[in-house]
Order: sequence, then C-alpha cells, then structure tokens
Amino acid sequence: MKLSTAALNFQESAIRRIGALSGTVPGLISLSAGYPSPEVFPWDDLQAIASRLLAKHDGNTLQYGATRGYRPLIEHLLANTLQQRGISAALDQVIITSGSQQGLDLVGRVLIDPGDPVIVELPTYSGAIAAFHNLQASLAGVPQDCGGIDIAALDRTATELKNAGRPAKFIYVTPNFQNPAGLLMSQQRRRELLDAARRHDLLILEDDPYGSIYFEDVTTFEDTRPIKADDDDDRVVYLGSFSKILVPGLRVAWLVAPKAIASKIELCKQAADISSGVFDQRLVHGALADGVIDRIAPGLRSHYQAKRTVMESALTQTLQGRVKWTSPRGGFFLWIELPDGVDDRTLFERAIEEKVSFVLGSAFFVNGEGHNFARLAFSGTSQDEIREAVSRLANAIHRLDTD
Amino acid sequence: MKLSTAALNFQESAIRRIGALSGTVPGLISLSAGYPSPEVFPWDDLQAIASRLLAKHDGNTLQYGATRGYRPLIEHLLANTLQQRGISAALDQVIITSGSQQGLDLVGRVLIDPGDPVIVELPTYSGAIAAFHNLQASLAGVPQDCGGIDIAALDRTATELKNAGRPAKFIYVTPNFQNPAGLLMSQQRRRELLDAARRHDLLILEDDPYGSIYFEDVTTFEDTRPIKADDDDDRVVYLGSFSKILVPGLRVAWLVAPKAIASKIELCKQAADISSGVFDQRLVHGALADGVIDRIAPGLRSHYQAKRTVMESALTQTLQGRVKWTSPRGGFFLWIELPDGVDDRTLFERAIEEKVSFVLGSAFFVNGEGHNFARLAFSGTSQDEIREAVSRLANAIHRLDTD
Repeated sequence: MKLSTAALNFQESAIRRIGALSGTVPGLISLSAGYPSPEVFPWDDLQAIASRLLAKHDGNTLQYGATRGYRPLIEHLLANTLQQRGISAALDQVIITSGSQQGLDLVGRVLIDPGDPVIVELPTYSGAIAAFHNLQASLAGVPQDCGGIDIAALDRTATELKNAGRPAKFIYVTPNFQNPAGLLMSQQRRRELLDAARRHDLLILEDDPYGSIYFEDVTTFEDTRPIKADDDDDRVVYLGSFSKILVPGLRVAWLVAPKAIASKIELCKQAADISSGVFDQRLVHGALADGVIDRIAPGLRSHYQAKRTVMESALTQTLQGRVKWTSPRGGFFLWIELPDGVDDRTLFERAIEEKVSFVLGSAFFVNGEGHNFARLAFSGTSQDEIREAVSRLANAIHRLDTD
Repeated sequence: MKLSTAALNFQESAIRRIGALSGTVPGLISLSAGYPSPEVFPWDDLQAIASRLLAKHDGNTLQYGATRGYRPLIEHLLANTLQQRGISAALDQVIITSGSQQGLDLVGRVLIDPGDPVIVELPTYSGAIAAFHNLQASLAGVPQDCGGIDIAALDRTATELKNAGRPAKFIYVTPNFQNPAGLLMSQQRRRELLDAARRHDLLILEDDPYGSIYFEDVTTFEDTRPIKADDDDDRVVYLGSFSKILVPGLRVAWLVAPKAIASKIELCKQAADISSGVFDQRLVHGALADGVIDRIAPGLRSHYQAKRTVMESALTQTLQGRVKWTSPRGGFFLWIELPDGVDDRTLFERAIEEKVSFVLGSAFFVNGEGHNFARLAFSGTSQDEIREAVSRLANAIHRLDTD
C-alpha cells in the first residue's frame, strides 16, 4: 500500500501533532471522508422493514446464508436495477459482497498473482490502490482528461506491459463521478475503452458506486450508462453498491462477472466470510422491494447537487484564480488543483491549524505524483459547514502566500 | 481446497443425482449443516434493539465505521466476555471480524505465504481447511485422542517441518467442542500444547465458537477455559464469535491477537471490506449491553444438550454396536465412526435415498483419511426430526449390510 499509505500516514500524524494524543482536533470540519449524508437516510422505512422482518420469526432471516447472496435480492437486481442500467446478466453471474471494497478484494484475489500488473487511472480510488497493493499487484497509472481515461496512453501502457512479458490482468476504472476526481467518462470514451480492452484482450473492472448520484442540472441518466451495458464479449466485471444510495452501515454491494470468474469468486468468498450479512441483505431487499430506494433517489441527487453548488460558490468567492477544478456532474467530490508551488502536505498542515481537513491528492496516485491536488468531499457535511470549511481552506492557502 | 472440496463436491453431486435438477431432495432431513436453532434466537429483544437504534436517527448507526470495529463493543468484550474467560488484553489487540471465518482468512492472510505449512488437527473444521487452502498453505495433520491433540505426534510433525527447512506458521486448534469431532481438549492437554508451542516457537490459532455451549450435565464452565487465558508470552491468537450464542445472520465475531499481528490484520481488513457491518455490530452490542446474551445462554445450553441426548438415545436404539462415538460434552456435533468396511461416500448415497444427509468424515481430514467417519449435526433440527433422521440413517446402514 506504498503511496496511499504514505499519504494517509502523513495525514494521521499531522492530525496527531496538532490534535495531540486524542488524534482529533476539536472543532475540525472534515472534508476528508467521503461519507453519505445521514440526513437523507430513510430511517423510518428501515425501522419498519427491520421490525417486519424480525416479527416473522423466520429463522432464515438471521441464519447462515448462501455465499452468492440472498436469492430474492439477486433476482430483484437482475429484474430491475441491472435492466434499468442496460445490463443483461444471468443469475449465476451476480454475487452479493460485503461492500464494493470486498468486490475489489475478491476480484483481485481471483485474478492477481503477486507482481501482476494492473492498470489504473491517475488519479484513482485509494481503496482500490489499497486492495490491489494488498495483493501485491504492480500498479501502472494512465492519465485522464476531463472526458475520462486517455486511450492513447492506455494503448502505450498496455503494449509496454505486454512487450515486457507481463501483460496487465485488468484495467480498473470508475466512469461515473470518479472518486477522487469527480469526472464523468463520456459515452464515446467508454466505447473507445471497450475497443481498447478488446484490442489488448484485457478485462475491465468497472466500479460504479456513484452512478445514481448524477446532478440533474447538468447530467442525465443516459450519461451514466455503464460500460458493462455494451459488453458484448464478456470482458467487464461490474461493481454496484448500496452504500451511497441507501446506507453504508449495511455492508451490501454486488458484482456482475463472467460466469467462470463468478464461480471462482464464490469459492474465494466462501473461504473469506461464508456470506455477507444475511439480515443486512434482507433489509436492503426490503428497501428495494418497498420502492424506498427508488423513492429517495431524486432527493439524494438534489441534496448532493445543492452541496456541490455551495462548495463551488464558496471556492469561487474565496479562491477564484488560485485553485482550479472541473465542476462535478455527480458524486461526492470536488477535486482541486492547488496554486503553483503549493504542496498537498504543506497545505494539509496549515489546513489542520485552521481546523479543516481534506485528503492529499497524492493519496490517489500510483506514480508518486498528485502533490498539487486535494480532494474535498461535499457529501457528509452541512451547507454551512461547507462554507466555513472552504473559508478556512482559503485562509490556509493565503497564509502560505505570505510565508 | 483439495480434500474438503472433493468431499463437498461429492455430496453436492450425489444430492443432485437423486434430487434431480433442483439440487434438493423433497422431505430430506439434513444433519449436515451446523446451524444454530432459530427457536432460541431472541427475536423480540433484537426487534426492540433495532427499533431503538434506528429511532435515534444517529448517523453513525448506519455510516461507515472503524476497521477495528465499534469501540463500545470492543470495550464491552474487554471488560466482560474476555475477563470472564480469563483473558487479559488491551484495546489494540481486539478486532471485530465479519464472522470467525473472516478471522481465519485474515489471520491466514497476514501469516501465510504460499506453500507455508500450517499444523491442524485430524479431523479439523472444513472452513479452516478452505481458508488456509485458499491461501495456498500446506496443511499438516496431527491426530487427536479423546483429550485433544496428540502432543507427541505434534512434536514429531513440528520437528520434521523445521528440519525440512519449512517450519509451520502456526497450529490451528478448536479446544472446545470441536467441529467436527465434538471433543473437549482437557485443561492438562491445553497446558501441554502451550508448552509444545513454546518449545517449537510456534503461534497457536485458537478457534472458540462453541465455548459457551457446554452441557451442564457433564461439563463445567471451568472446563472450557481457553488456552489464551494462560498465554503468558503472547503466542495465541484467539477467535470468538456471536454466531452460536446469538445469531449467525449478523456477521459479527472478534479476535484477540498480539499487537503487531492485530495491526497487520487491521490493514488487511481495511483493504478487504473497510469494516464489518456497523448496524450488525450495534445490534450485537445492544444484545450484550442489555444482558440478552447472558440471559439466553443457560437456555441455549439446555436446548442443545437435550438434542444431544435425543440423538444419542436414537443412535443407541438403532445402531448400538454398529457405530461408535464419544459423547459430546458441548457444541453442535456428534461424530460417528462407521462400521468396518462402510465408506462415507457409499453411505452418503444410501442416506440420501433414505432422505437424510450428513457431512462426509473425509471432508475434515487433510491427509486423505476419514472415510470411516460421518458428522451429524444435532443443532438445527427438532427433536422429532433427529429421531426420524437417525432412524433413516440406521436404515441406510442396515441396507449396506444386506447388499
């Protein structure tokens, strides 16, 4: 976990230096964690579903469950969610996982041998870096522009790896509102990526936790169509999650994989945790079957969209011309390029003194770069906190100017 | 997963042959699965706790959580459960896992490199075989007698492995009411095992899911004292679980490890699933804090004790002299030695025809043996079903005599 751990360790020790023993800084506003907002959790619905499930005294509700997951949940996904997203799949291609993090780990465990190259975006999700490094993969980064991964650079990297006798095991991408960069890969680019994967005979691992959180002022549902929907030759493994569209505290996510890979994942998962939480899966199924998830989705989109607008306005007011960003069209994150000469670690120390935190840009790069970036999460804090946090961040940057 | 998979694949295909496409046999009574009995699940308590937790609208109840686990749950374990079991440990030695199966996987992931030897009992838990084989460990089996693992044989195996330049990474044992053999390791033997581990400088992985399910007609709480309680030089990793004393559908278990190992496990778990289910952990904490788990424990013990008595009586009535067993002093399983010349696979096919199932003895052996054994679970079926199932099993055995 070389780079991301270095960045995260740096953050932790900086917080500890300033926050003393407790590891916390009183009054700190965190723009670090990409947490969904508890304000939009459907508390009453979940309470009703939990009560209903437990009132039945049906042993299976709290018993050991099938490794592939709760059958009615998988069937609901196939008949509804997957169909809506344009993905056709069979029952034996779907596996319920304990969050998409477990999906990343399991896919890695069945595909990666120590030393195997995996291609990732620059930047990419730090949890994926952690999962693949934990499996001793060698990570090769490919840059993105605002339309997504750079296909020419991908071609070069895939060819170099192949020529070196170590072809990549797969390409990992998050086309919808990527964590951390917030980018939406264009539909055109997705087709080109699929073509490139065919050319190099590579699998694609498509991670899509944010696809449903598109901002309707600038983005349509059609813009989020997954690569998997056009996967005619079974080379995409797709990860979906309930963490952002319901709650993350029920560890329920799912993956769609070619049958042979799904079978291997099932065996690996059986040895890893037998099954994901059976009660959690039934709660999620209840929320799907009752229409709760569909009902709250528009509210989630406008909730996060409004927070994005607040953060962008605050940045424009306090830091216009000093930091740059691409306006996020969905998701949880705003990714800023720091002023020339400002290093993410230096800024972080100042920011903690001003009682605001973010995640170092370098935590998301596998090539040692990214020190001129910072990830700001607008998802979990209130609008007032966002305004205050950005004002503190601006103070930290202005202080660096006067040093 | 060589041997156990061979055995389990055999069972599945035998069931499929007889049960046709569905993979199920109508009217089958399963003595296969080691499921706890839903009759003793505290339904109303869990319903009340779930309602209370969700009524608070406390975001942390359904949010992402710390990788090491829900702090009040860990603190409760330290102050109560661990203390009762004689184990002293610090906060940073405990990690909450998604069932003890994940504990086996995580301990394996941080300790085992491909090809490393691990010493296990003959027989041993098939889920541990699966977890360690999944990590490409090389498993060395050591026999048990009715007092537990054979120390002289363990000495020989440890010495041979060391002399071959491949010392074992750890010894895996289940001293309390082992799955599958139902044996209780004597306190004397536990001390000898700890001495042997010191002699060979080996770690012990102590798995204790059944410790609280001791049968009070023949066993006391003191008989179940864990090896970890006498671990003066920090060489025991201990696995505890709520699956048998509360419910398995909330995937909550815990481990106590030396600090350095706990730190590695935390990093590995963070990459594997971020954290175990936060809502599940709070439900379990509620059941502990409300005294539910302590309150139901005597009822669980008598419930399973009564089922054991029913199964033993039924076996005595129908199969006395034909099969042999050591009376289980706790746990979920009765382990029978089959009549001379009867193979577990042959009997399994006959048993399925008689509409009763069990688990092949050979599924629990890492050395290709065990075909003269069968594991019968008395935990999850009713007393009437147990009587009927044993009668069907007796028919299957008698039919083999007349073939």
